[in-house]
Amino acid sequence: MELYFLGTGAGMPSRQRNVTSIALNLLSERGVYWLFDCGEGTQQQILRSHVKLGRTEKLFITHLHGDHIYGLPGLLTSRAYLGGETPLTLYGPKGLKSFVEHSLAISQAHLSYSLKIVEIENEGLLFEDAGFIVETSRLEHRIESIGYRIVEKDQPGKLQHEKLAAMGVASGPIYGQLKQGKSVVLEDGRILNGADFVGPPLKGRKVVILGDTKYCRGAVHLARGADILVHEATFAKDRQELAEAYAHATTTDAARTAKEAGAAVLIMTHISSRYQIDDEEQLLEEARSVHLQSYVAKDFWSMEIERA
Amino acid sequence: MELYFLGTGAGMPSRQRNVTSIALNLLSERGVYWLFDCGEGTQQQILRSHVKLGRTEKLFITHLHGDHIYGLPGLLTSRAYLGGETPLTLYGPKGLKSFVEHSLAISQAHLSYSLKIVEIENEGLLFEDAGFIVETSRLEHRIESIGYRIVEKDQPGKLQHEKLAAMGVASGPIYGQLKQGKSVVLEDGRILNGADFVGPPLKGRKVVILGDTKYCRGAVHLARGADILVHEATFAKDRQELAEAYAHATTTDAARTAKEAGAAVLIMTHISSRYQIDDEEQLLEEARSVHLQSYVAKDFWSMEIERA
Repeated sequence: MELYFLGTGAGMPSRQRNVTSIALNLLSERGVYWLFDCGEGTQQQILRSHVKLGRTEKLFITHLHGDHIYGLPGLLTSRAYLGGETPLTLYGPKGLKSFVEHSLAISQAHLSYSLKIVEIENEGLLFEDAGFIVETSRLEHRIESIGYRIVEKDQPGKLQHEKLAAMGVASGPIYGQLKQGKSVVLEDGRILNGADFVGPPLKGRKVVILGDTKYCRGAVHLARGADILVHEATFAKDRQELAEAYAHATTTDAARTAKEAGAAVLIMTHISSRYQIDDEEQLLEEARSVHLQSYVAKDFWSMEIERA
Repeated sequence: MELYFLGTGAGMPSRQRNVTSIALNLLSERGVYWLFDCGEGTQQQILRSHVKLGRTEKLFITHLHGDHIYGLPGLLTSRAYLGGETPLTLYGPKGLKSFVEHSLAISQAHLSYSLKIVEIENEGLLFEDAGFIVETSRLEHRIESIGYRIVEKDQPGKLQHEKLAAMGVASGPIYGQLKQGKSVVLEDGRILNGADFVGPPLKGRKVVILGDTKYCRGAVHLARGADILVHEATFAKDRQELAEAYAHATTTDAARTAKEAGAAVLIMTHISSRYQIDDEEQLLEEARSVHLQSYVAKDFWSMEIERA
């Protein structure tokens, strides 16, 4: 599980940062990528990355401002152009369906795959399957904005093959039963207890990716106990008034949310183009004065998400 | 007057070519740029060029396929974001207004300048002012597609200041009268004839930029006597069947149009991503076997347009 930043700028592209898009690499977990937001030029950024458009399974939109959605029509049609045939589900606020369908219709684009568009009406559980739960929370911005909490389910611990082999237990159906925690009677009369041969459960990871927002309770609630919180930080802390006026967050707003939520790691993104590479040290310091484990994302930067 | 290629690919972006957009640099002639088509990522290409978004005056769309229009909402909003205040006029086929207005409305984008959208209904004269005439012709593609003919009006010749100075005629209102071709009586009784002091008129230039099309009469008609014809050449000549099926042109289709129209120079663009840099020599040779003055455009490539 890896977070990969395709675009980390705010409002409009700059030479350093494209507008927002983030990939969650779930190749090891389910053989696919999920994308979060899709600003203009996201498909061009993907061309320069390891992300495979044909392996995108779900695309989550946080809000409908142009720097988060104008790349959608091109990305969706290129996915068809490249021969993508697997279904794609698109989640986002009300209005998303109309934007996508109108753009595709005007340009007479026909997709080669099934596109399902889910407009989110209520906070809380968005979906759940065998491996993952995704929940949402409403944030506070000038337009409806959504945060996503991606919860990987705990996995059973690994069967300790070496320990069994050392006891002379050959592999076979018995291994499967032990792995499920059952007790097994061997032919020689020995009784093995599954719990003694299974490692500790693999703790699922929690990643929280927020849309644009000022500091708000919804963000703290959603980020509770996250391994990684991705939070916008459009401005440095000396621009608090500007941030309030546009319902954006500063570095210290983001760090405060991470701290209050007990999130292990904060990654700040959606950085205003007024900040150059030389300013990043300052942005980092501001956040770290509140929450030590803080980072500033860059385009094409990735972070492997370790288990807690 | 310079043609500057911002994107020269077909269908979807590749690492070598972004999707279609062309700038016509009219800084010397009227202090502005005109743009032709606006595929996704055009504003990012502009960031890496000398084109100034705030100085775009007119934007012409040839047809509504996504690789020609999906960059519009982002470009229009960034122009506002950058403080653009001068009016912008957007021309294109029916449906353009709905695409732009719907995209801006969904994303709650507000422009800081006046945007006028002209949907073209009839072929022929599109507009005329003191310096330029723009005419259109209908092409043949799978969707309504338009070609644009930009005609610079002839300018009066330059007044020969040195010749007048040598004759002892001091500069003043007399110079203006002579430049207009009038006869003037000097204080010493000499009579000067304007025609004797004005160089030959400066011939206006003709640039023709076509949308996607197969070979068609409309293209030949519009390109008649052009100094430069910009024509799509999606395919090499061995893909004639594929070109027909998708109503695109091959290299030799483009060259045939240039030859029949008597266009001085052909520039081919909208090149399929199946062709790599190594293939360009072949594309060129195919066109040059029909029309010697042929070129293949690349992203960020420019051509100064000389007077005939």
